[in-house]
Amino acid sequence: MASSRTWTAALLVIGDEILSGRTQDRNIAQTAAWLNVQGIRLAEVRVVADVQATIVEAVNALRARNDYLFTTGGIGPTHDDITVDAIAAAHGVPVVIHPTARAMLERHYATRGGVTEARLRMARVPDGADLIENAMSGAPGIRLGNVFILAGVPHIAALMLDALTGTLEGGLPVVSRTIGCWVPESEIADMLGATERAHEGAQIGSYPFFREGRVGANFVVRSTDVAVVDACVADLVRQLEAMGHAVVADGI
Amino acid sequence: MASSRTWTAALLVIGDEILSGRTQDRNIAQTAAWLNVQGIRLAEVRVVADVQATIVEAVNALRARNDYLFTTGGIGPTHDDITVDAIAAAHGVPVVIHPTARAMLERHYATRGGVTEARLRMARVPDGADLIENAMSGAPGIRLGNVFILAGVPHIAALMLDALTGTLEGGLPVVSRTIGCWVPESEIADMLGATERAHEGAQIGSYPFFREGRVGANFVVRSTDVAVVDACVADLVRQLEAMGHAVVADGI
Repeated sequence: MASSRTWTAALLVIGDEILSGRTQDRNIAQTAAWLNVQGIRLAEVRVVADVQATIVEAVNALRARNDYLFTTGGIGPTHDDITVDAIAAAHGVPVVIHPTARAMLERHYATRGGVTEARLRMARVPDGADLIENAMSGAPGIRLGNVFILAGVPHIAALMLDALTGTLEGGLPVVSRTIGCWVPESEIADMLGATERAHEGAQIGSYPFFREGRVGANFVVRSTDVAVVDACVADLVRQLEAMGHAVVADGI
Repeated sequence: MASSRTWTAALLVIGDEILSGRTQDRNIAQTAAWLNVQGIRLAEVRVVADVQATIVEAVNALRARNDYLFTTGGIGPTHDDITVDAIAAAHGVPVVIHPTARAMLERHYATRGGVTEARLRMARVPDGADLIENAMSGAPGIRLGNVFILAGVPHIAALMLDALTGTLEGGLPVVSRTIGCWVPESEIADMLGATERAHEGAQIGSYPFFREGRVGANFVVRSTDVAVVDACVADLVRQLEAMGHAVVADGI
């Protein structure tokens, strides 16, 4: 059985394209969902620009206070790809060419004009780092201590996460159940708070919405103990129905 | 003519639902795009959990080093909505009932059972705050100094941003143009870097992709000076075409 201590991770999204609004981030939700399955809680996220000092500050703050730090973005071959340099600087180590990554590039470019200096940039890693190889892409991610450096393109980041599945120590995964109700949040706010307090270890999130001209809310109950989730959901359903509200299983 | 100093904003996204992966964030891209039009650059984003100490720390770090701070989420009536309390605590002021917000609630609930204690929670603001009223929603946002407290539901946050349009001091808006090319990034990496250095005030972002079995990249040129953008784009196009690559205007 997994340990009951809570393991946490931070995510650092690196890229001007997110901050400019040009690109809709997909890595936060994707990484969060993957971490849940590993029994690791995503505790905080930062999005920063392609500026070395900013990345260094964020990397050192986040890796110190979480079990793991994931970064996405900035590992391509162009001038705006400075993640490897920044993470090396944050750790006080030089950037080196990783021999396995160089060999992968040499194989890939053998019939495509060979490895140029620009292409060789993709084999650069902080000294002491390991590669996160993956089945589908020639471009590996990079691991340095508790820092995992992933691609910015979401489907490549997903391949790198797949390669890490089951390799990181985590705790009990969080279990959640959702129910929905066509009720204004403010009518049941006190009941929700009292119900959460009555079920130790349960957390109730309330997510209101407006649809088809009516207000409603989904309630998400989370805990690392499935019995606590079930008891809390049953209690919520009983109280909502006693107040005359129909409850929709699995949410609206 | 607007000032040429750079105005910056930070965004603090508050909510367990983003960190759990349950909800795909839409407020980062929406706020970023709106800020661009106001001549304000989104400099950094943090996503934090519904935990008061965490919110307080982030609010104080972000509001100190940016001209503006926007927050989204946590302003509803339920027990997990702690944004107002946290931002009041960050400023060292008490939470009070805003008279205008109370009057709005009394009007709204006059024929719906009156204002209960739970409903009155939605009129709570940090002492000294103003409301961000908006045309379409009865729920106002809140402004306290340089901190703007918005709803978490993206279309309500958008109404609050609309209400603020044109009211914040900003600088020159950033202008951008995008071109696309079916070329591997690594082939033109050196050229991109040299071109950026040759056009002072221009920034070139390179965003690779894999589509239809081929690799390509879009190049986004940004500057506050449209003439600099145009000159830099023309230079890029000339060099890409000289290398034998067709350029797609407005990106691929």
